[in-house]
Amino acid sequence: MMGEIKVKIVGATGYGGIGIIELLLKHPRARIVSLVAREAVGQRISDIYPHLEGYCDLKILAADDPLAQEKVDVVFFSTPDRVGMSEAKKELAKGAKVIDYSGDFRFTTEEAYRDYATRIGRDPVHLSPELLGTNVYGMPELHRKDIAKANLIGNPGCFATSCILGLAPALKANIVNPITLVCDCKSGVSGAGKKVNQSFHFPERCEQINAYRLSGHQHVCEVERELGLLAGENVMVTFTAQVAPISRGILSTLYGDLKEDMTEEEVLAIYRDFYRDSEFIRIFPSIAAVGTMTVRGTNRCAIVVSVDKRTKKLRIVSIIDNLMKGQASQALQNMNVMFGLPENTGLDKSGMYP
Amino acid sequence: MMGEIKVKIVGATGYGGIGIIELLLKHPRARIVSLVAREAVGQRISDIYPHLEGYCDLKILAADDPLAQEKVDVVFFSTPDRVGMSEAKKELAKGAKVIDYSGDFRFTTEEAYRDYATRIGRDPVHLSPELLGTNVYGMPELHRKDIAKANLIGNPGCFATSCILGLAPALKANIVNPITLVCDCKSGVSGAGKKVNQSFHFPERCEQINAYRLSGHQHVCEVERELGLLAGENVMVTFTAQVAPISRGILSTLYGDLKEDMTEEEVLAIYRDFYRDSEFIRIFPSIAAVGTMTVRGTNRCAIVVSVDKRTKKLRIVSIIDNLMKGQASQALQNMNVMFGLPENTGLDKSGMYP
Amino acid sequence: MMGEIKVKIVGATGYGGIGIIELLLKHPRARIVSLVAREAVGQRISDIYPHLEGYCDLKILAADDPLAQEKVDVVFFSTPDRVGMSEAKKELAKGAKVIDYSGDFRFTTEEAYRDYATRIGRDPVHLSPELLGTNVYGMPELHRKDIAKANLIGNPGCFATSCILGLAPALKANIVNPITLVCDCKSGVSGAGKKVNQSFHFPERCEQINAYRLSGHQHVCEVERELGLLAGENVMVTFTAQVAPISRGILSTLYGDLKEDMTEEEVLAIYRDFYRDSEFIRIFPSIAAVGTMTVRGTNRCAIVVSVDKRTKKLRIVSIIDNLMKGQASQALQNMNVMFGLPENTGLDKSGMYP
Amino acid sequence: MMGEIKVKIVGATGYGGIGIIELLLKHPRARIVSLVAREAVGQRISDIYPHLEGYCDLKILAADDPLAQEKVDVVFFSTPDRVGMSEAKKELAKGAKVIDYSGDFRFTTEEAYRDYATRIGRDPVHLSPELLGTNVYGMPELHRKDIAKANLIGNPGCFATSCILGLAPALKANIVNPITLVCDCKSGVSGAGKKVNQSFHFPERCEQINAYRLSGHQHVCEVERELGLLAGENVMVTFTAQVAPISRGILSTLYGDLKEDMTEEEVLAIYRDFYRDSEFIRIFPSIAAVGTMTVRGTNRCAIVVSVDKRTKKLRIVSIIDNLMKGQASQALQNMNVMFGLPENTGLDKSGMYP
Repeated sequence: MMGEIKVKIVGATGYGGIGIIELLLKHPRARIVSLVAREAVGQRISDIYPHLEGYCDLKILAADDPLAQEKVDVVFFSTPDRVGMSEAKKELAKGAKVIDYSGDFRFTTEEAYRDYATRIGRDPVHLSPELLGTNVYGMPELHRKDIAKANLIGNPGCFATSCILGLAPALKANIVNPITLVCDCKSGVSGAGKKVNQSFHFPERCEQINAYRLSGHQHVCEVERELGLLAGENVMVTFTAQVAPISRGILSTLYGDLKEDMTEEEVLAIYRDFYRDSEFIRIFPSIAAVGTMTVRGTNRCAIVVSVDKRTKKLRIVSIIDNLMKGQASQALQNMNVMFGLPENTGLDKSGMYP
Repeated sequence: MMGEIKVKIVGATGYGGIGIIELLLKHPRARIVSLVAREAVGQRISDIYPHLEGYCDLKILAADDPLAQEKVDVVFFSTPDRVGMSEAKKELAKGAKVIDYSGDFRFTTEEAYRDYATRIGRDPVHLSPELLGTNVYGMPELHRKDIAKANLIGNPGCFATSCILGLAPALKANIVNPITLVCDCKSGVSGAGKKVNQSFHFPERCEQINAYRLSGHQHVCEVERELGLLAGENVMVTFTAQVAPISRGILSTLYGDLKEDMTEEEVLAIYRDFYRDSEFIRIFPSIAAVGTMTVRGTNRCAIVVSVDKRTKKLRIVSIIDNLMKGQASQALQNMNVMFGLPENTGLDKSGMYP
Repeated sequence: MMGEIKVKIVGATGYGGIGIIELLLKHPRARIVSLVAREAVGQRISDIYPHLEGYCDLKILAADDPLAQEKVDVVFFSTPDRVGMSEAKKELAKGAKVIDYSGDFRFTTEEAYRDYATRIGRDPVHLSPELLGTNVYGMPELHRKDIAKANLIGNPGCFATSCILGLAPALKANIVNPITLVCDCKSGVSGAGKKVNQSFHFPERCEQINAYRLSGHQHVCEVERELGLLAGENVMVTFTAQVAPISRGILSTLYGDLKEDMTEEEVLAIYRDFYRDSEFIRIFPSIAAVGTMTVRGTNRCAIVVSVDKRTKKLRIVSIIDNLMKGQASQALQNMNVMFGLPENTGLDKSGMYP
Repeated sequence: MMGEIKVKIVGATGYGGIGIIELLLKHPRARIVSLVAREAVGQRISDIYPHLEGYCDLKILAADDPLAQEKVDVVFFSTPDRVGMSEAKKELAKGAKVIDYSGDFRFTTEEAYRDYATRIGRDPVHLSPELLGTNVYGMPELHRKDIAKANLIGNPGCFATSCILGLAPALKANIVNPITLVCDCKSGVSGAGKKVNQSFHFPERCEQINAYRLSGHQHVCEVERELGLLAGENVMVTFTAQVAPISRGILSTLYGDLKEDMTEEEVLAIYRDFYRDSEFIRIFPSIAAVGTMTVRGTNRCAIVVSVDKRTKKLRIVSIIDNLMKGQASQALQNMNVMFGLPENTGLDKSGMYP
């Protein structure tokens, strides 16, 4: 596997697209060969994002443009639900690997997809049911081996990534009650994507923190499924999505009822052991001064462990960059695993501070 | 009670001091007669805060300045713990009413004070034990009648205000388990006051959300005490303090285990009834689009009620302006009650948006 | 003139509308009787802006709703260019005074309007030419007497307000070259109004400062006209509009070539004299620590005077809240003058800090 | 020159230090061997900046620590004025090249240094006068050849960089009056460094734009000197420093009086030609939508050219990241030139958006 990895990006003009472009430009093996989008067709990507001028000046192609049909090694679908679902098959048939950012391939059975889609009020019928079962949930920390063998990856949701990584060791070690979990999640605004919205208009956001979709968030399904697999039993989470005025970052505060008295040190040991082979996961004790800026621009997840002795609650603070470990860099990490590269290829550099 | 209310403010140059100055300037009955502080003595308050020029140009006095000894009707101590404690007695003896912002008079027994002080690593000996029992916890929504008769008020903590107001109806109505409560609180930076700090230096804060003091926050004591009084039994909360890059605002997301199945409408009815005489508390259903900007600059608390049917959790989002209902305007509300004025005197105007 | 002033607001749901609503609620004589808008007809204004709940719950009316035809004393048109132009006549005929926020009535001749409209690429034909000449440019510091007699006011542009107020004394005193002036203006995002836009999407704005419309800004016309009237000769300004990530505020740095050597003190004396009867204008020496937060939420304009001796440049920093002195509060100041009230009625309170 | 370049960083814990650390970690030839600072001695740099954990965990050394004496190839002094001045000689004697961020080596004669130091109220006596004349002003776009031969570089000031790069072509081409130039500069807060300050406390900055040091800024000296060298005659600028609530970025709007009528296209041609060999300088026409985020995290300078025909002013908008082209990345660019490497080594990647 020493050659160049040719990449096509569908949905190149959104934040997920631009994120993977920026990363691939720094990747020693990848080469972007085509950018596809529905908007700005015919313009250069650097006309829209002038910070890319001179680094990536490819023209944006319509999906049906002949140039966009060229054979590539991997396709990233940074597209809304139900786009990758109908396009993946064709790409796979041409021999490309596929990494899809949406919910389309995060579930491996029609039933699970139906449950998810119903919950968020979308069409419950999957358009490529024959692919379900061949796809893998793209969280290398949990599914490294399956990802290495897969051609089709459902890249995890951003909130879900922070919750799953934060709670996985506790569920696996069976130290918390699996049905009383609370996930209190705060996201930066870029989590909602590039699309403008009154709620994200600068003057109405710069002093605003709010909770939203209190009736149910689409990421709950994958959190409960993944944690349930680790726990070996049914898992239920109470999940709250909140938005704060930062551009990038998710800080999820996760609460579980400890089954028996434990010290912070004991829990830290469990967490460190669980992630001993996962360099992107950084475990911190409760006194550490870390926050969203600690991981900004990187594929890292910072996990702070604390135990409230009085109330016997385990409290985990799980922090990611929603556009990186929550999206583009996790997608690249998946690509690395799929192509047999070291997991940190092109992802082994610090972010920028302040 | 038709005369002018003469006011002294101790700690006038901090955010709590400036907040009450701004409010008193709009109050039809109050007149500020002296400003006391340890810094900037001899300067005009408007030299430090030029937005006050022409509105309040009083000179800042040292505590022992003769001009600061003049008899007043009420003294606001916007000072750190253990200042009001040693000064209040003298002011009370001169016939002034006292409203203290710190933890000094939030507890009514030496034992409760000791517990609180110990928890936060401070000297556990109260300096004016003879006053304990005459003081009242200054949350008018819960203690209106006692405040009206009191001369000494311990103004509540900002986080505590949001948590207590958010959970009080549920505890009173006995609908949640009182010992599994979770308070996940997010504050704007002004909650930490005017004092500069690396963590609040603009470049290190503008993209930063973080949790802090995971080992225990001083406001937990008053939350558990007040809710315990309402519940008639022991209450325990798991409390998390977090800071996000806004100037003003607290959004606390509060979780309780419902004792039995309830609908959002049923809980809404309980909340609306509990606060039927409290105009500053605004109850919203889960679909409401409210956030910290909804209450900015006002004495209001916005409470959003939601029920997670799957997990049987009650989830309350409680929102205040930390410098207003969390500090200065609640202090003024207390003053109004103490002086027999309508509770909303000088507090009956909308904030500013955006 | 002791009765109630009945007010109608057209364009009530934009920032200019909400701004005048908030102010009128605090005005001792005004009563809002109707709110008109094109969006959200039938909803309460507090459904859209929940911070107004309980303070203003009026329903939003369509322009042709019979309830919106009721006779009022004054109509505020917080509407885009060419709306007030066609509606003002009708309101004036009914005996209402009219204050228009747009460019429609900032010019008093068809020719001046044509010049302005042409410059910004709009239809150069004024729809109510018969009204031109009866209208007055609504800057009380310059046109107090005419405003008092007028029934139709063109409320100044926000950038223009900062530039005109900042340079007026220098032009009147004839101390700077009138054709080499530079106006370097920085605005908060609310200056662009409520309408969402990619450039004001929070993630793309929070770290962004940029210049825009370098080819020409519509406010230049009124700046040159007003300053020309004061100078008694032709005035030309090089004008740059820039946007920075604050919600409210304009800081304009204004440069002029001094005709002869002058000290800062001499210029300060000229400025203080010019504005001796204008309480909202606050003059500061160059060492003052003032900024956009000094005037936020108020009708004030802070003017900092400095002289660069080496280069013989006069440099004025002129600071306003673009939504207040730059829009709604200046409109209210105009209303006060038109109705013979003290200019500061409802405008005599400090803003909020921080 | 194929070996490793060993680097010592003095002042490693400030923003300038951390900036060069982050960059050197991505540089294919450099290796950081020691970090020196006055604070946090004995701690790992990643204890203070946890985003570096696993990337750079070097211990911070005192200046006199034996480990800090080890021979290196280059020393970066990210220190206040007068530190590098006294230390550089020793490092040069040991055979190291020196790049100093302060004003110490931006001037090449005692007289010029005295003028600068006097202007900013510092000790006018240079401590290493014998080095003056061997040092070079570290702006590769202007002094590439001299830098390649130098061992001692005075790294330019951040504001100065934006002004000089923005005006250099115009002065060189002799198209503007050299003594009526105006530099209106807006900086992000990180330009003031890591040190906390009331004015940069988040709640007092997030809505604040202000001008400061109106009586004179230290960067003016180098701007006038460098532009004077290009013009071949005396240059004078009126300079205004302003701070806006962004973390990183400088946007300088530069005004010059055109000596004769020119079109934007003619000026663009002059600028493009001047910078034809300088890949980091990106020239844009006046319609381009660029801002501080266009260059964030990179060594680029975006220059927007516009001509105001009415007033015959040339207006240049010059944009950099103050911590990059304004500090650390320009220092690295200098290092590359000094070591005969391609100028963009380790600097050839796009930044991150949003």
